This record gives sequence, C-alpha cells and structure tokens, in this order.
Amino acid sequence: MADVTLLDLSRDIDGPEARRIRDRIRKGLVVKAGEKLSLQKRDTVWKGEPPFDELSAQELKAAASDFLVSGVKKLAERQELLWASDTYSLLIVVQGMDASGKDSTIKHALSGVNPQGVHVTSFKQPSAEELDHDFLWRISKALPERGRIGVFNRSHYEEVVAVRVHPEWLDRQHLPSEPSGAPLWESRFRDINAFERHLHDSGTRIVKFFLHVSKAEQKRRFLKRLDEPEKHWKFKAADVRERTFWDDYRKAYEDAISATSTEWAPWYVIPADRKPVMQAMVVGVLLDTIDEMDLRWPHPAKGERVALEAARRELTAEPED
Amino acid sequence: MADVTLLDLSRDIDGPEARRIRDRIRKGLVVKAGEKLSLQKRDTVWKGEPPFDELSAQELKAAASDFLVSGVKKLAERQELLWASDTYSLLIVVQGMDASGKDSTIKHALSGVNPQGVHVTSFKQPSAEELDHDFLWRISKALPERGRIGVFNRSHYEEVVAVRVHPEWLDRQHLPSEPSGAPLWESRFRDINAFERHLHDSGTRIVKFFLHVSKAEQKRRFLKRLDEPEKHWKFKAADVRERTFWDDYRKAYEDAISATSTEWAPWYVIPADRKPVMQAMVVGVLLDTIDEMDLRWPHPAKGERVALEAARRELTAEPED
Repeated sequence: MADVTLLDLSRDIDGPEARRIRDRIRKGLVVKAGEKLSLQKRDTVWKGEPPFDELSAQELKAAASDFLVSGVKKLAERQELLWASDTYSLLIVVQGMDASGKDSTIKHALSGVNPQGVHVTSFKQPSAEELDHDFLWRISKALPERGRIGVFNRSHYEEVVAVRVHPEWLDRQHLPSEPSGAPLWESRFRDINAFERHLHDSGTRIVKFFLHVSKAEQKRRFLKRLDEPEKHWKFKAADVRERTFWDDYRKAYEDAISATSTEWAPWYVIPADRKPVMQAMVVGVLLDTIDEMDLRWPHPAKGERVALEAARRELTAEPED
Repeated sequence: MADVTLLDLSRDIDGPEARRIRDRIRKGLVVKAGEKLSLQKRDTVWKGEPPFDELSAQELKAAASDFLVSGVKKLAERQELLWASDTYSLLIVVQGMDASGKDSTIKHALSGVNPQGVHVTSFKQPSAEELDHDFLWRISKALPERGRIGVFNRSHYEEVVAVRVHPEWLDRQHLPSEPSGAPLWESRFRDINAFERHLHDSGTRIVKFFLHVSKAEQKRRFLKRLDEPEKHWKFKAADVRERTFWDDYRKAYEDAISATSTEWAPWYVIPADRKPVMQAMVVGVLLDTIDEMDLRWPHPAKGERVALEAARRELTAEPED
C-alpha cells in the first residue's frame, strides 16, 4: 500500500480501490462514539497509510490538487443528486484554532459545487438579539434546507469551547443560575447531542471537522500573514492573545469532541499542518457521507407521469408560431 | 472586428481589447434608464458585434467554455477583493421565463467562486407568514451582507410580473384597497426603485438580468426535459399552462423592466437561446460591475500597524516549545 498516492486515488476516485483507501483513512480520522479524545495523540501531519506525507511539498501539492479537482467534481455531481432527490440535507461543521485553515478548506473543498446548493454561514460574535435567545437559536436559523449543503464556519461548538475558555463571556448571556441541574457544559453537550439527533431524524446528515493544527504551524502562519500586506486584513492582533490560551482550547476541544461525537453526527480530526492533504481528506469524507445517503434520481409517481404525458401532447399539438 | 471570438477574449480577459469589446456588448444589452423596452425588438440569439453566433454550435460551446473558465477565475479573484475590502456587496437578480436558463446560469457563472462569499436565494411561492408582510420583507431578509455576492433566482420582480399576469393571486395578500393613490403596479415600481436606491446608497451594487428566451426555444427545452427521465423532476406540468400566458408575461416584463431599469440598478436583457453565449455575457457584465466599484486591498490604519508590529514581536519572542 505504501506506494499509493493521492494522485493514484484521483484517477479513479470512485473506484473500488479508492473507496477502500478512503474508508481506511476515514476510520483513522473519526472520533468513535464514546472515545475519549486526546489531541496530543492525534497527528497534525498525516502519518497513516497511505503515507501521503512522505511526498515532497511540491509533489504533494500537485497530487492533492489533482485529487481535489476530481473530488470536487464528484462532489458537485452528488450535490445535484442531493438537490434533485430533495430528501436529505448535509450540514458540515468546521472548527479549529485560528489559522487552522477553516476558510481555505471551505473554499477549496466546495468551490466548483453549484452555489445554489451550498450555503456557508460564518458565526461571529453573537449580536445582542442572539444573546437574548438560547445558544442554538441562531444556529437553527442557518440550517440548510432539504437538498442543500450547509457549511458552518465556526458553530454552536464555540459555546462549549471559546466560551468555556473565557467563562466571563457567559455574563452577557444572562443564564438562569441553575439551568437544569447538570453542570453547564455537561448540560450543553447533552442539548447539542439531542439537537443534532433531532436534525438527523429530520433528514439532515451532519459531519463535523476539527482542523488539527500544531502550535508551531499556527505561529508560522501568523508570521506569514504579518509579512504579506495583502493578508494583513486576515490578522487581528487579538489572535496572538488567544494563542496564549492554547492549552485551555485544546482541553475544551477534547472534552467537547469526546462528548459530542455520535453515530448520527461524528467528528473527524483532520491533520491540518499541510493544507493540501487536509483539504483532500475533507473532500474524501464528504463524498463518503453523501454516498451513505444512498440517493437516487427521483422518478415521477404514476399520477405525475400521466400529467407529464398530457403536457407533452399539449406542447406538440401547439400551432407553430 | 468580425473576426473576434469569445476564445480571443478569454485569452486576455482583462486586457484593453477585451474590455473595449465587453463594454460594447454591455451597451448593447443594457436597458437605459427611461427606455421603453420592446422585447420583440431584442434578439434571443446574439446578432451584435462580435458575431459570436456565426460560429457552429460546437465551436461556440468550446469558445464559450474557455471564456467562462477565464471569466469565473477572474470573478473569483474579484470576489476575494470584495470580501477583503468589506465595503460593498453585489446583488444579482436573475429573472426569465420558465426554462430560460436561470439555474444553469447561476451554476456556470458562479461555480468556482468561493461559496463562502456567495449566497443564492431561490424565491418560491410566498409562505403564509411572508404574505402577511409587505412584498419586500422576505427580499430584505435575503440581502447579501457587505463583502458578499447575493444571487436572487426570481425575486421581488415576480410581484410585478407573475402576480400581474395572475391578479387573482393578490387576494392572498390582503392589501388595503387604496395603497397610496397610484395604481398598484405603478406604486410597486416606485417602491422597488426607492428600495433599490436605498440599497445602492448603503453599498449594495445591483445588477439585474432578464434571460430572454424565445417561445420556440422554450418548447424545445420543455420537450427535452420530458424526454430525459433524469430531468423529469425539473419539469412541472403547470409550466405548460403558464406558457399559454406567454404574451401577458412578455408585456408585464416590458413594463416592469422599463419602469425599473435605473442608473443605480440597471437591467440587462441577455439573449438566452444559446446558453454558452448567455452565460459568457452574464459573466462579462458581472466583471464590469465589480470593476466599477474600484476596490482596493485594505491597508491597516496607523493604530492597527502598531498593534500588528507588537503582535509580531510577541510571536517571535515566544520560547520554542
């Protein structure tokens, strides 16, 4: 297996060999329901099989780019089927530390898919109106309709990660002092799981990505943003301050992901230090997730077929203009 | 000029020659403010200069596909600038008869642009809640945020076209009998113009496309949908009934477009019988529209520069892990 590359996979991305490999990779990335996640034991550079990361940076970029082109094309086809069959929707949650590559993953994994079928929501600081509602209120409003792909760039998980790292932010939420007996974070995990199961039961398939970047790689990316004037706007001085809370974030993510990786809404921890591999892996997981819906082109019911035939007769009987 | 093709344009899509030609095409497509539009005098197949439509169908498809690839790439770059400069948004309204190519234009003109910066809204039958509000209420809720491209697949113009063809639909709107002295449609045109000017003044640039398909071509497309089982789901028997109102729709569109093509929100009538040319023209107009915003990469203010330098010092002073 050691000689299989992303390039090989991209040649026949839906072939049995590629599917087998994708399946193996996916098993290496998923957090199993009930698993106690340790991020320190998870690689930020892929070291599994196939050994993509043994390629040189240049080879890797070329191979991943080929894979992405094939993968996004397949994703676009599947999205059309998702749309046509109008039964399921797909919700993609993207989380990660600052500069872990959330924006670029969304851009590369989904540019090329019909924008009519994709809706990306970036969750920022909640507004005063949003703070006056429960924390899932603004999330609900952004959910994808049947047939669509919804992407959350940050999500309700900020409420059990960033807010947990900065519990003083809770003051603005005016919560009742004893929400429901359980400790706050436990109660939020439980509510998130119940919410996501409800969505699943209503036809929303959920897949959650944690883009796992190392602290050293984050520093390198921050410095790069500071060096390139065209990237200054992406950098906020406050990001460096957040970096000092690195270990708190890591622990909060470990807790949250362990508590909310479920059969109906699994988390995948994606090695994020090398962006091309990260993006290819995200696309691979997305392809598998849609395949599991076992979508088919809709066939009109008998009544509709009669109506379609009547329509055809009416059209062909029209006088020529 | 007769020998200029879409292929030539695609080679240097932002070069002075291409800009000149795009500009000329745009002038041939726009409805000038105050112009009384006659759709029967507008071609459904492009007959202007350059004479794209003299190419064979196959040559045309190849040339338009090249132009689209270059054009969408440029559009993606400009969208990134739109996003970074965070001052303007772009609202694209797409209207046209059934099967005029609204869906496929959106797909081909915008697939490849970062989906994080594009939000497509398809307006369908208004809900009971929407009917209990003014007709611009649901439109407002779907407007693009600063930095984004919003696409309306159908729009508030259905309220002065489809509803005008079927005035019985007004009953569900429970309007006061004398809305504001002016006849209903005139009053709606006036309100739309005021609404769009307000958006323009707030930084939303608006461009409106009427995809102008011939009645014969619509028939051909309907029959094709009936012939291909995979396209049945796109066909509703009711579409054939709407076709019998063709002239009413044409007149309602002529009135609405004439009344609402303004300096701040112009209409373009795009020949729609040959999809590749139509899509290329839409992309050309979009490029020009964004260019007119004269966007620049944001530069941090002095206070921010100081903060960025402090951030750099803090990062580089970190002990190695």
